Amino acid sequence: MPVNLSPPDPGSLLPVPGVALGAAEAGIRKPDRRDLLVVRLDEGARVAAVFTKNRFCAAPVVVARQHLTMLDPDAAIRALVVNTGYANAGTGKAGVAAARQTCAELARLLGCAAGQILPFSTGVIMEPLPVDRIAAGLPRCVADLRGDNWLAAARAIMTTDTVPKAVSRRVTVGESEVIVTGVAKGAGMIHPNMATMLGFVATDARVALPLVRKAVTHAADRSFNCVTVDGDTSTNDAFVLIATGARKMPEIDGERSPEYVAWRDGVTAVARELAHAIVRDGEGATKFITVRVEGGRGADECRKVAFAVAHSPLVKTAFFASDPNLGRILAAVGHADVADLNVDLIDLYLDDVLVAAKGALHPGYREADGQRVMKASEVTVRLVLNRGTASDTVWTCDLSHDYVSINADYRS
Amino acid sequence: MPVNLSPPDPGSLLPVPGVALGAAEAGIRKPDRRDLLVVRLDEGARVAAVFTKNRFCAAPVVVARQHLTMLDPDAAIRALVVNTGYANAGTGKAGVAAARQTCAELARLLGCAAGQILPFSTGVIMEPLPVDRIAAGLPRCVADLRGDNWLAAARAIMTTDTVPKAVSRRVTVGESEVIVTGVAKGAGMIHPNMATMLGFVATDARVALPLVRKAVTHAADRSFNCVTVDGDTSTNDAFVLIATGARKMPEIDGERSPEYVAWRDGVTAVARELAHAIVRDGEGATKFITVRVEGGRGADECRKVAFAVAHSPLVKTAFFASDPNLGRILAAVGHADVADLNVDLIDLYLDDVLVAAKGALHPGYREADGQRVMKASEVTVRLVLNRGTASDTVWTCDLSHDYVSINADYRS
Repeated sequence: MPVNLSPPDPGSLLPVPGVALGAAEAGIRKPDRRDLLVVRLDEGARVAAVFTKNRFCAAPVVVARQHLTMLDPDAAIRALVVNTGYANAGTGKAGVAAARQTCAELARLLGCAAGQILPFSTGVIMEPLPVDRIAAGLPRCVADLRGDNWLAAARAIMTTDTVPKAVSRRVTVGESEVIVTGVAKGAGMIHPNMATMLGFVATDARVALPLVRKAVTHAADRSFNCVTVDGDTSTNDAFVLIATGARKMPEIDGERSPEYVAWRDGVTAVARELAHAIVRDGEGATKFITVRVEGGRGADECRKVAFAVAHSPLVKTAFFASDPNLGRILAAVGHADVADLNVDLIDLYLDDVLVAAKGALHPGYREADGQRVMKASEVTVRLVLNRGTASDTVWTCDLSHDYVSINADYRS
Repeated sequence: MPVNLSPPDPGSLLPVPGVALGAAEAGIRKPDRRDLLVVRLDEGARVAAVFTKNRFCAAPVVVARQHLTMLDPDAAIRALVVNTGYANAGTGKAGVAAARQTCAELARLLGCAAGQILPFSTGVIMEPLPVDRIAAGLPRCVADLRGDNWLAAARAIMTTDTVPKAVSRRVTVGESEVIVTGVAKGAGMIHPNMATMLGFVATDARVALPLVRKAVTHAADRSFNCVTVDGDTSTNDAFVLIATGARKMPEIDGERSPEYVAWRDGVTAVARELAHAIVRDGEGATKFITVRVEGGRGADECRKVAFAVAHSPLVKTAFFASDPNLGRILAAVGHADVADLNVDLIDLYLDDVLVAAKGALHPGYREADGQRVMKASEVTVRLVLNRGTASDTVWTCDLSHDYVSINADYRS
């Protein structure tokens, strides 16, 4: 059961002019589910992406990076293709050839060049990609292409997810109102650096390509890069931002312009909501935990301390048990890779309850208060370092029996 | 059920001349168990220790470090005192005072100075140490002091351990045969840097103090610092090496002498066996996993790669399920913090089975072979980086349902 997360209301998902989506049952790994997705973009769309930092990146990541690097205005990206079932990672040269062949098959159907397609895969690592089944399924995806297919797209890319993840917003940009709609998948192996996470966000705004590229990094750093389920990173993850430019409006081209900031913040809000949905659907999660670190010398040290807490299996099992064994949080802080961190200055709050002040148990703290906070399904851990003015926030979930079950059984 | 680990045969534990141990039921946290230990050393013993690198180090660690720093030949360490139940961490100045008071109480009973006592605590963090109960129990520990009490000592320091951990060896050093006997505790939060681990090893060899200090670091780096259960580190961990000098023999005082090397290697072997026992008794462990990395440019990068694998929850749950989902191992390698690691060079073996060659699935690999290896209770993961001649090894266990249960219930 995900934490306070329901499937999106289909009526809330706004089509993005210039984007059509089509999904099909290609029988790639399991029968009776849509497992193949095509996202077709009208001519003129600008596309930018960030990928996993895992050195063992999958073949589709290698190919997608190449296609984005070769990008020129006359041969821009025209489609994305996403398969589940197999990650096409650890598959060597044959894997790269398989990803290229997938692009070539779709390019033939859409009448563009293979280099204009971005391939994505998610699933089991180190098994060959069944290109024939994918090729056979692509015509059905193309036949299904529709602008209002976002929920079907969200379903088609699910793996261990229990709930499809899709979000839409209208954003006022200068005189215009633009649409931002996105889908994501991911439930485990979620970590900064995009681990086993796929996110696709599209907007109809007209934005210069360099700013689309800036925005994708900005949004990732404030969304997918600050959530964690188990600290592992994946070989396949990617976050793609598409600006179709279908909206009639002046092009956004100044990084300091209020239009850019408004649009970028709208994109970031959608990405963050998708990232939170991934944590809420974290494998076996029963609690949504916000770890906020304040009073640091810089955002970087705040993030390191926050992740040290968010990654700790002992902290995460204590939350699962609703046991305010809060020394585990301080022990995790002490383990953070921050030079000269003075733990004797640190205050620890659980929601509004002051647990520890200046590194030691606060005399006014009552365990009943800690227990009350920990029993809730949403908890905020707040750490005040008392050595500066910077802050940062990351989000995670607890570690439960079901995490073990899901990951012990994933392939069977 | 620990993995291939039985309680030590009491007859196998050799008393160390110059060391007496006494344990008592002090009712520190739970009734009906021995929870307090005193280790008394004859005059002339040389003592060295390494402690947790967690910045949130516990009050007894602060005090023990001070007492070891003040060490002079005329007022050397004369006793250790260890309590379970409370870690006396995150307890501020009151905690330091409580640790000092514990030392003072024992010093009064033994007729030495408080600065000649090293205090150790393990248990729940951030709750005050019940010094009165400890003080009341100390006379019974002193009354119990005996040379052949090693097994009782191993039992008295257990927390979530299911099996007491004690090891003894005879080591030939030049013309002499010396004894090395040690006890340890720890079952979770075990990680390099001494996490929630206490280890006490004593020998009757005559060794110059600087060499005792060298040997404690040498042994820790090859034992307790290369095992991990859950990657968390603790506030309290310590490894203490005691050389009583009770054996009539020439003092070992040359770092390059064969006598030093023989003795140091004997100490390291005992420490390693204790560290392995901790992993075998890892919370919920069902498998003992050796991760060996070869062909690296230096031991440091080999260790980083090995720990990236040994810390991965996805790898550890795959081992729990005996599921050769081996791409997870490569993904963990790709996540290691090693600059310019070329994953296209890496070979992966599971015991003697070649799974991946040059970063991709080996064509001759059969899943049945992987399955056969993974079903065993002891498995070796071997990674060959193919870029140098260095190697390193770490040890870990799998991640099971019981890990979650134990840590969700620890305080109740």
